[in-house]
Amino acid sequence: MPERIFNFSAGPGVLPVEVLEQAAKDIVNFNNKGIGLIEMSHRSKDFIAVADETEALLRELLGVPKNFKVLFLQGGASLQFAMVPMNLLGPGKKGAYLNTGVWAKKAIKEAKLFGEVQVAYTSEASNFNHVPAQSDYKVDDDAEYLYFVSNNTIYGTQFQAFPAAKQMLICDMSSDILSRPFDFSPFGLVFAGAQKNMGPAGCTVVFIREDLLDRSPANLATMLKYKTHADADSMFNTPPTFAIYVIGLVLKWLKKLGGLEAMAKLNRDKADLLYQTIDASSFYRGHAQVGSRSTMNITFNLPTPELEAQFVKEATAQGLDGLKGHRSVGGCRASIYNAFPRQGVEKLVAFMQEFERRNS
Amino acid sequence: MPERIFNFSAGPGVLPVEVLEQAAKDIVNFNNKGIGLIEMSHRSKDFIAVADETEALLRELLGVPKNFKVLFLQGGASLQFAMVPMNLLGPGKKGAYLNTGVWAKKAIKEAKLFGEVQVAYTSEASNFNHVPAQSDYKVDDDAEYLYFVSNNTIYGTQFQAFPAAKQMLICDMSSDILSRPFDFSPFGLVFAGAQKNMGPAGCTVVFIREDLLDRSPANLATMLKYKTHADADSMFNTPPTFAIYVIGLVLKWLKKLGGLEAMAKLNRDKADLLYQTIDASSFYRGHAQVGSRSTMNITFNLPTPELEAQFVKEATAQGLDGLKGHRSVGGCRASIYNAFPRQGVEKLVAFMQEFERRNS
Repeated sequence: MPERIFNFSAGPGVLPVEVLEQAAKDIVNFNNKGIGLIEMSHRSKDFIAVADETEALLRELLGVPKNFKVLFLQGGASLQFAMVPMNLLGPGKKGAYLNTGVWAKKAIKEAKLFGEVQVAYTSEASNFNHVPAQSDYKVDDDAEYLYFVSNNTIYGTQFQAFPAAKQMLICDMSSDILSRPFDFSPFGLVFAGAQKNMGPAGCTVVFIREDLLDRSPANLATMLKYKTHADADSMFNTPPTFAIYVIGLVLKWLKKLGGLEAMAKLNRDKADLLYQTIDASSFYRGHAQVGSRSTMNITFNLPTPELEAQFVKEATAQGLDGLKGHRSVGGCRASIYNAFPRQGVEKLVAFMQEFERRNS
Repeated sequence: MPERIFNFSAGPGVLPVEVLEQAAKDIVNFNNKGIGLIEMSHRSKDFIAVADETEALLRELLGVPKNFKVLFLQGGASLQFAMVPMNLLGPGKKGAYLNTGVWAKKAIKEAKLFGEVQVAYTSEASNFNHVPAQSDYKVDDDAEYLYFVSNNTIYGTQFQAFPAAKQMLICDMSSDILSRPFDFSPFGLVFAGAQKNMGPAGCTVVFIREDLLDRSPANLATMLKYKTHADADSMFNTPPTFAIYVIGLVLKWLKKLGGLEAMAKLNRDKADLLYQTIDASSFYRGHAQVGSRSTMNITFNLPTPELEAQFVKEATAQGLDGLKGHRSVGGCRASIYNAFPRQGVEKLVAFMQEFERRNS
């Protein structure tokens, strides 16, 4: 095996090598049982134990309250954009949204199909370079919920403190779940696609307060009702067994590292290395406002698009892969999820400093 | 590695060992590129090549006409039960259904939420032990389509010839796709969950005639419109990359074996071994009527439930795993999908004969 590259992809993203190596064994021969993991019936005793352990670890590491169901669904965060209002809005019901980027906008678009929408705040005019402070917006009294995206991958912004509202919060945590501890109590529903901090693409984890399960309209398709999946322990139909299994492995790795407090510190340290490099330079400019900076996705620009292209090309050649920014921001983006090694951040910092010396 | 068991699971089901071994390598280090398959961005050049190859192989092996789109979706066949009528029915529009088992019934239930339904035939009174002949039903002239399930896993029935109707056909081929060649021309839409003959759970392949893409109501959620996925080459959001990759490996294996004609012959031969054993015995009784017998799932009963339990227990101890029938039929079920080895069928036949001698 050649040297492993440093994978700055925004998602699917880097996973711990020990997780990949364990998965490689179990794919051919799960637990030495003479059957591959992906060949096992989802209703077999062995697979049910896998799913139960994954759920138990999620509950333990995240401190999920007992009155929340944990669901393993499919369709990505994008299907949740519709499922949330399909289940919780309806004629005359309103959802409040904080528009902090493309993924929030897409959620707003879907919500408008199924109810009223209040866009309580938008940072679109400044190309989503910040998330709002509590004092920046007011949620309508008659809104059912306040929806926000905790971390905005494309722009590199992240809520440092979560919004406070009299309504329950609903959050798309796809790109920073498991990166830091948080308190579930103000939330009604939290969801996250697995493919950044949790595992492979193909599974979306939904945490939903049990009392919300009965709100869905009767004429909603069976597969789109949260209650369908809650009542069947996510086995109403065949769940994405491989993704659930890998999520379990990632959670074991995370627990061994010390859990979310330890992870948050590692993430803070990695991000600080990059932000300090940006702040110490007049060559690199961060896209996100300082108070909104993400620990997961660090976005920055160079003096010209030509230098940005050159930077990405040279970095790639050195095994620093996936640094090209999203087209809507341009420039560069370093996605440094939980499993991204500090050593790779150090190598990027050294490369940035060296590139600046050669080109400024 | 201990001896590999013979896995008669109805799904997720057995996969070729060489596929599992290749997946094990690529999960840690894809193509020696220093990055694992499941860590790769779905928009990377390398993953797009994987998805393109999987689609090209599906088109080649199945002879998919140029005017069909091939989509890699999530949510299983169960989400298709709703997506089909959500996209193709609506107020005043009717779908005709052949009710040949639980999966057809579930599709009928969803269709009733979004349009009118004609149940043109049902075999429920005989516990779904057969599928209808063409002369057994008449489809209403004003139906938009005729929907059927080509193979009914639970009951072990399969259409030997597909229905003919003036309407386009829509088919759930989850449990026998790629088991035999067929002509796409009477079809408007074909879908199949991957986890029986194609790969791991977590991906549903949809083949849809292009002219149908514009029929969806405007107020349908973005993720539930087929056109969304067709326009984005199944990359509107992050697709289930691992499942798409494994499907590609399975298709390469299938092509090497000689494609669908060769596969159909192997499947016929394997099934015949079991049906001959059943027919030569008064101890075993097949559930499916002779003309409706499936090559994929062979269902049979023993003289008493006690003997059935004993049979399953002893078989399991000999490495013949997953033979317990579905609770709605009882008895035993041998699922022998494409990747199930003939050697395992021979071992089961020998065990059946020996068990009969000891217990009759």
